[in-house]
Amino acid sequence: MADGKTGVWLIGARGGVATTVAVGLAALRRGDAPAYGLVTETAALAGVDLPAWDQIVLGGHEVRGGTLVESARELEKGRVIPVGAAERYADELAAVDASIRPGVLVRSGRAIETFADAEHVAACATPREAVQKVATDLRAFRAAHDLKRVVMVLVASTEPPVDEASLPTEIEALDALLDDPLSDSPLGDDAARCPLRASSLYALGAVEAGAALVNFTPSRGANCQAIEKIFFRAGLPHCGADGKTGETLLKSTLAPMFAARHLHVDSWVGHNLLGNRDGAVLADLDHKKAKVQSKEQLLASLLGEAPQSHVSIESIDSLGDWKTAWDHVHFRGFLGVPMTLQFTWQGCDSALAAPLVIDLVRLMDLALRRQEKGAIGALAAFFKSPLGAAPRGFVEETQTLIEWATR
Amino acid sequence: MADGKTGVWLIGARGGVATTVAVGLAALRRGDAPAYGLVTETAALAGVDLPAWDQIVLGGHEVRGGTLVESARELEKGRVIPVGAAERYADELAAVDASIRPGVLVRSGRAIETFADAEHVAACATPREAVQKVATDLRAFRAAHDLKRVVMVLVASTEPPVDEASLPTEIEALDALLDDPLSDSPLGDDAARCPLRASSLYALGAVEAGAALVNFTPSRGANCQAIEKIFFRAGLPHCGADGKTGETLLKSTLAPMFAARHLHVDSWVGHNLLGNRDGAVLADLDHKKAKVQSKEQLLASLLGEAPQSHVSIESIDSLGDWKTAWDHVHFRGFLGVPMTLQFTWQGCDSALAAPLVIDLVRLMDLALRRQEKGAIGALAAFFKSPLGAAPRGFVEETQTLIEWATR
Amino acid sequence: MADGKTGVWLIGARGGVATTVAVGLAALRRGDAPAYGLVTETAALAGVDLPAWDQIVLGGHEVRGGTLVESARELEKGRVIPVGAAERYADELAAVDASIRPGVLVRSGRAIETFADAEHVAACATPREAVQKVATDLRAFRAAHDLKRVVMVLVASTEPPVDEASLPTEIEALDALLDDPLSDSPLGDDAARCPLRASSLYALGAVEAGAALVNFTPSRGANCQAIEKIFFRAGLPHCGADGKTGETLLKSTLAPMFAARHLHVDSWVGHNLLGNRDGAVLADLDHKKAKVQSKEQLLASLLGEAPQSHVSIESIDSLGDWKTAWDHVHFRGFLGVPMTLQFTWQGCDSALAAPLVIDLVRLMDLALRRQEKGAIGALAAFFKSPLGAAPRGFVEETQTLIEWATR
Amino acid sequence: MADGKTGVWLIGARGGVATTVAVGLAALRRGDAPAYGLVTETAALAGVDLPAWDQIVLGGHEVRGGTLVESARELEKGRVIPVGAAERYADELAAVDASIRPGVLVRSGRAIETFADAEHVAACATPREAVQKVATDLRAFRAAHDLKRVVMVLVASTEPPVDEASLPTEIEALDALLDDPLSDSPLGDDAARCPLRASSLYALGAVEAGAALVNFTPSRGANCQAIEKIFFRAGLPHCGADGKTGETLLKSTLAPMFAARHLHVDSWVGHNLLGNRDGAVLADLDHKKAKVQSKEQLLASLLGEAPQSHVSIESIDSLGDWKTAWDHVHFRGFLGVPMTLQFTWQGCDSALAAPLVIDLVRLMDLALRRQEKGAIGALAAFFKSPLGAAPRGFVEETQTLIEWATR
Ligand SMILES: NC(=O)c1ccc[n+]([C@@H]2O[C@H](COP(=O)([O-])OP(=O)(O)OC[C@H]3O[C@@H](n4cnc5c(N)ncnc54)[C@H](O)[C@@H]3O)[C@@H](O)[C@H]2O)c1
Ligand SMILES: NC(=O)c1ccc[n+]([C@@H]2O[C@H](COP(=O)([O-])OP(=O)(O)OC[C@H]3O[C@@H](n4cnc5c(N)ncnc54)[C@H](O)[C@@H]3O)[C@@H](O)[C@H]2O)c1
Ligand SMILES: NC(=O)c1ccc[n+]([C@@H]2O[C@H](COP(=O)([O-])OP(=O)(O)OC[C@H]3O[C@@H](n4cnc5c(N)ncnc54)[C@H](O)[C@@H]3O)[C@@H](O)[C@H]2O)c1
Ligand SMILES: NC(=O)c1ccc[n+]([C@@H]2O[C@H](COP(=O)([O-])OP(=O)(O)OC[C@H]3O[C@@H](n4cnc5c(N)ncnc54)[C@H](O)[C@@H]3O)[C@@H](O)[C@H]2O)c1
Ligand code: NA
Ligand code: NA
Repeated sequence: MADGKTGVWLIGARGGVATTVAVGLAALRRGDAPAYGLVTETAALAGVDLPAWDQIVLGGHEVRGGTLVESARELEKGRVIPVGAAERYADELAAVDASIRPGVLVRSGRAIETFADAEHVAACATPREAVQKVATDLRAFRAAHDLKRVVMVLVASTEPPVDEASLPTEIEALDALLDDPLSDSPLGDDAARCPLRASSLYALGAVEAGAALVNFTPSRGANCQAIEKIFFRAGLPHCGADGKTGETLLKSTLAPMFAARHLHVDSWVGHNLLGNRDGAVLADLDHKKAKVQSKEQLLASLLGEAPQSHVSIESIDSLGDWKTAWDHVHFRGFLGVPMTLQFTWQGCDSALAAPLVIDLVRLMDLALRRQEKGAIGALAAFFKSPLGAAPRGFVEETQTLIEWATR
Repeated sequence: MADGKTGVWLIGARGGVATTVAVGLAALRRGDAPAYGLVTETAALAGVDLPAWDQIVLGGHEVRGGTLVESARELEKGRVIPVGAAERYADELAAVDASIRPGVLVRSGRAIETFADAEHVAACATPREAVQKVATDLRAFRAAHDLKRVVMVLVASTEPPVDEASLPTEIEALDALLDDPLSDSPLGDDAARCPLRASSLYALGAVEAGAALVNFTPSRGANCQAIEKIFFRAGLPHCGADGKTGETLLKSTLAPMFAARHLHVDSWVGHNLLGNRDGAVLADLDHKKAKVQSKEQLLASLLGEAPQSHVSIESIDSLGDWKTAWDHVHFRGFLGVPMTLQFTWQGCDSALAAPLVIDLVRLMDLALRRQEKGAIGALAAFFKSPLGAAPRGFVEETQTLIEWATR
Repeated sequence: MADGKTGVWLIGARGGVATTVAVGLAALRRGDAPAYGLVTETAALAGVDLPAWDQIVLGGHEVRGGTLVESARELEKGRVIPVGAAERYADELAAVDASIRPGVLVRSGRAIETFADAEHVAACATPREAVQKVATDLRAFRAAHDLKRVVMVLVASTEPPVDEASLPTEIEALDALLDDPLSDSPLGDDAARCPLRASSLYALGAVEAGAALVNFTPSRGANCQAIEKIFFRAGLPHCGADGKTGETLLKSTLAPMFAARHLHVDSWVGHNLLGNRDGAVLADLDHKKAKVQSKEQLLASLLGEAPQSHVSIESIDSLGDWKTAWDHVHFRGFLGVPMTLQFTWQGCDSALAAPLVIDLVRLMDLALRRQEKGAIGALAAFFKSPLGAAPRGFVEETQTLIEWATR
Repeated sequence: MADGKTGVWLIGARGGVATTVAVGLAALRRGDAPAYGLVTETAALAGVDLPAWDQIVLGGHEVRGGTLVESARELEKGRVIPVGAAERYADELAAVDASIRPGVLVRSGRAIETFADAEHVAACATPREAVQKVATDLRAFRAAHDLKRVVMVLVASTEPPVDEASLPTEIEALDALLDDPLSDSPLGDDAARCPLRASSLYALGAVEAGAALVNFTPSRGANCQAIEKIFFRAGLPHCGADGKTGETLLKSTLAPMFAARHLHVDSWVGHNLLGNRDGAVLADLDHKKAKVQSKEQLLASLLGEAPQSHVSIESIDSLGDWKTAWDHVHFRGFLGVPMTLQFTWQGCDSALAAPLVIDLVRLMDLALRRQEKGAIGALAAFFKSPLGAAPRGFVEETQTLIEWATR
């Protein structure tokens, strides 16, 4: 039974997605808003025992200053949340703000450095110290709110991609790295030192404090092999990576149609425009690489054969949170005749992501109660690069999700 | 075992779809073309025992003159079939031409009248006479080619919609209508007389001659209740209606995504442009109604709630066979924020339809061998208005198809 | 010199366009907003002597109740005007409200009747009485605000199209109609009576009170031949019809390119979706006809030859003021090869229209000072169906406008 | 008077554009095709004295082997020219083939090297030798066909961009470079040597032989300052650069509309997909830079202020000659409300370019007869980066063209 309170610890707690989660939960609690966007509120999952809106408590880490109300005002201007929401939910947002702690920045990349705020970054001498600091904050959160279960959610800015070969595969090897001194600059990139980025250390902190983990970002550090083993050994569930909210959602919906009809896709080009802080971080080339990677693997498996494919993400300031994706699919049908499907997706990124974060928290709460451990592949429908699951079409992923949740 | 030869009797045998079927089969027999567009050639159906290309023999009814080679040349100009195909397959096309017989026109509507050719329309005094004429032609076709099984496929022009309440629900009631004298004009619409249109009479002729039936058109006459009962009683399988080749295919692919993500679709507008003879027939208002009807039922069932919906079909001459559909989907996500998906589909209608016709013939051959009778709901993936099946998403329909075919 | 105050009398004074005009002028006066959308604020017209923001005074006729602040709140929700604007400019809006008088409804059509408010409709026994009532209100407005010049602007709902042959061509013939008794119902359509609709009577009221007239609507009644003669005789300028804000603007911009490059346009299909009150009125078939007519004449003259053309306007509630137009242009180039241009326009209708209304008021003020009379063809760039000007491309119309204004 | 014959010397004579020119002229001569795409055949230029189709004789330089008929067959498959054209005009194409000579490759870049054919590349020891070889071939062409006037047209593959600072500005400085030994490899890039690429040497060869020059490519080498001076001194006209056939044409058509309406463009993103040999060359990064540069300068001047802008060109094999461009324009209107215009252009690149090449040849013939010299700015409407003209809107450029041609 989803008894007691469930804590949600948001990494990137004043970011666009996190703020929309906070505003949305406040609105849902007051019955102000329809449950649109929430998968856990569809008829198919109606019978599942999940925490109610008022059983969910928010807190988190953040490296920027400001208040949640300020973040909400920005979102209001950007048409992400309803006019008047920042004011209406000011009290609820202030309460969350009170549970936000300085975050850690470790090899997090130049783009994040430009907006991070020294007084909101916890100084740590070694990776292990950072892990402990994270775990300590989580335990304090649990105690302060008398939480039954805690789920950490990574919704921090995308980190630069990490050379996966450099990441430890065994628990011991990982442990051995944690006492390397950190670079003087928390953003340093020093080959002689521990290659783990902040996302890895947050994940380790979650385990340390007995929390489940949702990695909603494309940052791969949170999911290296050694960390997967650590979650499994600790009997804790985790899932990720990279929330599936836009173009990839459409790819995983449309590609199975081409495959089922034996329409041969020659090329699939996707051009993404995005203007918020996330867009600015991704515009920094290194960061972009991580995102594009996680977007390009899918088509080959769904279509059997890899089409010529091109994915770009451009940061266009004027668009704000309004991701615009244009996709051009060139395919051949009977006797080789070439045809075209184009689509334009104009979605509000934070408004698409936030309900999925809430869904994932509720479903990870279920996994915790069921004592499931390691990667929860049944949540693949939520992710661009699902852990513990082969790439499949979106409908099939959804079928698996429903079976898992209702079993 | 798919032994011997299977006959395919095309109603509308020199039309765009039928001609593409003839050209395509010739190309497949010679190994000229990839099997793109053919569902029965996907890996999922690889093991199913189906007639080979050279086990399929074509013939049919047609109310226009001309030759198949001429039709093929038109398609070549229209970029439906490869450059040079009309010449390359001239012999095969001539062979099919030799098996084409004059068709029947009964209450078929003004638009068809404008291009029908008196000397290719069989004169019949009563509906029963028309049924007999059709059955006689089918039997002769079976005998001439020593066919094991015969499948009739309706790919004639769309008839005007029929008031479904006026159609008989019982076999006896239907039988009683068949001796009404037909109008002087084969296109007449005389309230005092039998309300059945040509599509009904073709269906009855198929039963009479022991053939299975595929209704690829939106003409509902072929599927009234009494006729369904007649097929069932005769132990013959039939399926339809209205091949799913464009916008509806996309609707049944995309709508489940909105439903699974709980994105509330406020409006879904579809605007179809089409320029071939089919487009011209549909431009005639009565005929269009039949098509739009068959397109509008789907969304309500897939989305739970019916969005505001608008579907139009315009006949734009310059587009020829190149159906262009623009769809605009306006939906609301978290906290009610409105978002938009638009797509443009530029597909070659006959090239999309023809392989499905071949698939359906092969699968109906399987049904005949398995002695399945009545409506084959497992073929719903192929149709806009599937007989014997509730409306579902395209992936689910495909899953059902695969289970049925491989069982 | 643009001395003193200029009065603007808006017919439809609490409608979307009128309210945006009122909010916009308040914002401009306070220096809150950039001058985007205002043609009279481009560099090309910088030197022209035009009334300043605080020289313009608003009033008008309206047949619905409510307040301008309420209308502004609706627009705020609909993302037409900035968040907070209704509150910020509440005083200015209230001041305008104080100058709004009940309107007249004469043969204005069923759709308007559904939302008109009996107590805001002036009862008149004859057309002449309606004209006098309008003129009286205008004179009172002029006196109350000590206005130097007055411009009436029609931004009321589109009326049903009128049979242009039934409209008088001579001043005397028109005058003879004005004493017919009006139908009992102000919306009646009685063949025996005067065929003039409200738009004609408003125009006559303007002349009577010495005001210039801008017809921003597609209602043709304001511009019949007899009325043109009356304006000319009275030495008053007028212009119209139907503000050019969306698809037509693009047509008049793009068509000259096809013509200049000798690209042969075979078909041009435009599909317009719109959801506000204007959309609802246009959805009423009769009203729509008037709009579509005014949209279809242009292409033939710009392209030399008329392409196959189709224009539709659908009322889609969820879109509100956000007109979405999809245009598909199919054209042939060298050696007849067919090519395609598609565009999607997502514009906020009231936000596009309001600055043009302000531009037109300022320019008609100039015309009044210059004592120009009759139709001002030099303002064609603003209209879909320009009075006193042959249809031309938008750039050429703009060149003419600049020459006229700066001469 | 356009007396006698005019020779057209195509650099890149078996490429897509050149082949379409050859096929098109043959079709025009036989009266097979409408004059679509030809600006010189619009009503506006009807009275201008220009060479007739049979007064134009083709020849050129090429570095690949094969025959024009083979090139034409490729274009036929790619739907650039009508089905059957390669065969129908085989004799005319063979006649042109007989006048094609090996070209020169000088610092032309890696991408071209991959398909150039050693036996079709003329070996030259110095730049001067290359210039002489070009001039000699031109003189022979003139003599063989008794030509009155000759126009060279650069339609060779785009060269890598050249550092414009490294190009000579004075005639003498240029002359001094021409005796540097060329690299061993004709593609070498040797800092110590003459920086001129093939395009410069072709231009010098044209002057040497008394020919006019059209630079239809983005290769800037043909238009360095010293070369402009040489043309002027020689009394010869030239024009360029980079034919305006697609996205830029639309930009120069649409941007003036935004400017005239004071709609503030925040961002303009253009994404171009292209699949032919030209696309493959441009995909080579260096070459792409030249093209993107020539595309990005325009908006700032047309809009007054430079929007955030992004232009990409991707090589997508399956598209062949069918350039697909998606543009997304984000602009703000009254009170700052953001709106969107998107367009998709699906044009056949060679079919758009070829008639412009023919137009330019005819108009340069006029310039030769009028003894105009130096850059002909009046031809700006044809080019992305017009020589001798400030960037303006397309309609204004067309007005200038018409004035110039008809004066
Ligand atoms: N919105 C979507 O649709 C979507 C979909 C998939 C993935 N994502 C991912 O979710 C993440 C968040 O997106 P967003 O739009 O909210 O971005 P955002 O920039 O608005 O928020 C990220 C927040 O993380 C903070 N942050 C950065 N590094 C941190 C650290 N080391 N510790 C603590 N806080 C840190 C930043 O200060 C910022 O407030 C991104 O990685 C994005 O790629 C978003
Ligand atoms: N092409 C597609 O993608 C597609 C998809 C779904 C349904 N359909 C349907 O398939 C049918 C055929 O389409 P098409 O493009 O081949 O059209 P078409 O007009 O090219 O061919 C129809 C043929 O039927 C003939 N015909 C008409 N009435 C007849 C009668 N009573 N008896 C015999 N022949 C008759 C006509 O002469 C014509 O040759 C249409 O009903 C269409 O709506 C097509
Ligand atoms: N917004 C645009 O881009 C645009 C462009 C061109 C033309 N127009 C035209 O401008 C007009 C106004 O558009 P809108 O969006 O403001 O519509 P709206 O429905 O919001 O406003 C029209 C107002 O006119 C009032 N009205 C109706 N009949 C009246 C009468 N006889 N006397 C006085 N008031 C009357 C209505 O009550 C309503 O308040 C319409 O005719 C529309 O077609 C608008
Ligand atoms: N097609 C258009 O719409 C368009 C528009 C603007 C500019 N252009 C430019 O026109 C040029 C031609 O385009 P295309 O599509 O015909 O390309 P293409 O690749 O089909 O043809 C170019 C030809 O030039 C030849 N060539 C390359 N280097 C040469 C040299 N040094 N001497 C002689 N021949 C040489 C190649 O072998 C090839 O046959 C390109 O530079 C392109 O960017 C084309
Ligand atoms: Na329509
Ligand atoms: Na790109």
